[in-house]
Amino acid sequence: MMDATGSADGRIAGYDFGTSASARSPLTFEELSHLEQTVGWTRDDEQLMRKHAELFRSKAEEMVGSWRAVIGAQPHLSQWFVGAEGMPDEEYKARVKPRFVQWVVDVATRPHDRAWLDYQEEIGLRHTPAKKNRTDGRHTPPLVPMRYLLGFVPVVTDVRGFLSAGIANAAELEAVQRAWTKAVHLHVTLWCRAYAREGLW
Amino acid sequence: MMDATGSADGRIAGYDFGTSASARSPLTFEELSHLEQTVGWTRDDEQLMRKHAELFRSKAEEMVGSWRAVIGAQPHLSQWFVGAEGMPDEEYKARVKPRFVQWVVDVATRPHDRAWLDYQEEIGLRHTPAKKNRTDGRHTPPLVPMRYLLGFVPVVTDVRGFLSAGIANAAELEAVQRAWTKAVHLHVTLWCRAYAREGLW
Repeated sequence: MMDATGSADGRIAGYDFGTSASARSPLTFEELSHLEQTVGWTRDDEQLMRKHAELFRSKAEEMVGSWRAVIGAQPHLSQWFVGAEGMPDEEYKARVKPRFVQWVVDVATRPHDRAWLDYQEEIGLRHTPAKKNRTDGRHTPPLVPMRYLLGFVPVVTDVRGFLSAGIANAAELEAVQRAWTKAVHLHVTLWCRAYAREGLW
Repeated sequence: MMDATGSADGRIAGYDFGTSASARSPLTFEELSHLEQTVGWTRDDEQLMRKHAELFRSKAEEMVGSWRAVIGAQPHLSQWFVGAEGMPDEEYKARVKPRFVQWVVDVATRPHDRAWLDYQEEIGLRHTPAKKNRTDGRHTPPLVPMRYLLGFVPVVTDVRGFLSAGIANAAELEAVQRAWTKAVHLHVTLWCRAYAREGLW
């Protein structure tokens, strides 16, 4: 039996953060720093996310559930979760979900170190023919097209509704919303490396 | 002499919207509709942008000026505007600027028709070796890397400060901010087609 983490022992199946199973990013920390500056990510943003880490942790599953509902309501988005028989691959969805939830927690808590950078490379690849399905041994289409990954960003960045009950101060809520938005952009931009033509990323 | 539009006759040089000089997008309107649904773009958003079109028109140059200042302050962003002599190519910058300003107005006012779709393809290509410099006959680096195009989105989406003087109602300001954010995501996602590996966009 799988529990809520998608595995039998409470560890998240296929969550290869910091392990030898993760891809390696070719980025230098200087290149990462340039990208952080571009999205406007600051030490203040990092500290603000840490301050509210427990809130993100407590809301992560609800966030992912709501995003999954948006995906499920749009056939052009849900088709990438369909199995060989033409029906949604529920095991694939069940295995991916706890990693998606963990990603929310990671965005709020993980330092931008080498293991984190490497794992963003891995996540990108898992959306492309290079690695999609491989981690979970499933047979869904071999791609989530980049346009849907990018197009879905405004849905994922708008988290005010999830956080408002936990952050009473309106200015602080707004600041957390901005920090989260910048962080999501940073992550998705790193993932898009897997889609880009040689030399164009 | 060039005026503020970067041309001698008041037309914007190289602004090939709706002309035979524009690239053609291979997208169908059904594919476009799927992408609009993904970012959450609605008829209400479109009408809201139209309602405030004059505000965007009056603020477009100021917006672009502020974004250009952000770019100018970050060498990893400004290097793509440097000429063969290693100095910023002021003529290139002067020619690109009015098109950037016009883009803001277009986002607020243009229907998402074939001419608009084709021109987004053209804008994407003008950021890559396929067409960068060609329109203006300049010799800046042949690329704006996709990671900087994507990473800069949070800077461009945050327009509250420009619009707040013109939209007194806080809820309406928030709605315009959201509509603008969705629209920018849609545009940049279309531009990224030029960067993607075959079949992955």
